[in-house]
Amino acid sequence: MTYCVGLLLDGGFVMAADTRTNAGVDNVGKFKKLYTWERPGHAVFVLLTAGNLAITQAVVSLLSEGTQGKLGPAAEVDNLFAAKTMFQAARIVGKAVREVKAIDGDFLRADGDGFAASFIFAGQIGTERPRLFNVYAAGNFIEATTDTPFFQIGEHKYGKPIMDRVARNDMKLGDAAKMVLLSFDSTLRSNLSVGLPIDLLTYEAGSLKIEHTKRIGLDDPYFKMLSTEWSKALRTAFMNIEALDI
Amino acid sequence: MTYCVGLLLDGGFVMAADTRTNAGVDNVGKFKKLYTWERPGHAVFVLLTAGNLAITQAVVSLLSEGTQGKLGPAAEVDNLFAAKTMFQAARIVGKAVREVKAIDGDFLRADGDGFAASFIFAGQIGTERPRLFNVYAAGNFIEATTDTPFFQIGEHKYGKPIMDRVARNDMKLGDAAKMVLLSFDSTLRSNLSVGLPIDLLTYEAGSLKIEHTKRIGLDDPYFKMLSTEWSKALRTAFMNIEALDI
Repeated sequence: MTYCVGLLLDGGFVMAADTRTNAGVDNVGKFKKLYTWERPGHAVFVLLTAGNLAITQAVVSLLSEGTQGKLGPAAEVDNLFAAKTMFQAARIVGKAVREVKAIDGDFLRADGDGFAASFIFAGQIGTERPRLFNVYAAGNFIEATTDTPFFQIGEHKYGKPIMDRVARNDMKLGDAAKMVLLSFDSTLRSNLSVGLPIDLLTYEAGSLKIEHTKRIGLDDPYFKMLSTEWSKALRTAFMNIEALDI
Repeated sequence: MTYCVGLLLDGGFVMAADTRTNAGVDNVGKFKKLYTWERPGHAVFVLLTAGNLAITQAVVSLLSEGTQGKLGPAAEVDNLFAAKTMFQAARIVGKAVREVKAIDGDFLRADGDGFAASFIFAGQIGTERPRLFNVYAAGNFIEATTDTPFFQIGEHKYGKPIMDRVARNDMKLGDAAKMVLLSFDSTLRSNLSVGLPIDLLTYEAGSLKIEHTKRIGLDDPYFKMLSTEWSKALRTAFMNIEALDI
């Protein structure tokens, strides 16, 4: 399984992904699910991936080859850096997904597997504001608005209550990162197929460069503090509310 | 959808169920999913149901007719009150599930539906301690232990983090009821197919009678207070932890 969150803020965005992959509980691996492409001063793109690892890695490879002008002869994927808006960039991600489906989809179906993949895509191009998208396996996508400034993919349920209560687009980056990590903390406790380390990226609007990425493992002092303090605070909050009078 | 929780305590048990049923979001109904049978001073049984309503209601009807000695000629279900232990009582519930499957299973399959049903079953018989079971659609079951004193059925994920953090078998009944209601609060916020009112039953070990049942609707002052205070406390707890230094 996987857990990824993308949150769009007035001041930028936060993107985070766990790193556990598994085919059954007896076959567990560690793979990166957060990818970035940047041309400092020009554009920044961040992609989070969930689903079949062969599919998502192929999408990432196509996008990377597209940015490097190294695509194979038949590949129909464009260069992210040629996009003038994030809408156009999201279309390019969708096209890469469809390209992989065109190549691999029938073979997966023949083996009884679906084409399972989903993506959270964020970025900023030039003077356009940062934007955030949820790209589906069909290659189409939706965009985050202030009504719902975040997307989750993978095992999203355990970590949703804290996001539903706290997430706002006017949060500061540091607070938003804290919230996202708490959302991971709840998920990690309840689903073994989501695992540390977490890749966390915070992007400041207008900076047009990737400066703040962090890999958070079991020994990360901030995450340890957060997990402990949150447990304590929840228990205190729980005890401070009067019990049901039976 | 449905959300039900059963929690076994040293001092008794707490059982709770929502009342929403739906076949698509445009066909929503309100149905009881918490059922009780009692012979004061002798035995108490509580059943929570999730899944196909036609199946679960049939199981409940069979069990009720069994306790009343009114079973039809072919019915293979025994009288709950004839059980000497809760293990035997849980077997009777499982037998009722199998009876319904024997009658309806092929017809459901013919229509492309599975035999979807699950149950949480709790009770106490005479001097035996209260016991709690999770009964599956196959009619078999598992029993709660002090390692995991609670079971959830239906939409369990949103309400699990608070249970994972707080649930202990040495909680007092009033605190346990508070925790269960908080677990419902998180679920209600995130899944529209789980709906108020909640049926809540708290049972005191050794009492051998059902004294405390409560239907909690939108206007219930305790639930309103709980929901508001919990939101406030979570936000305060969140703000009191330092932000990630970026």
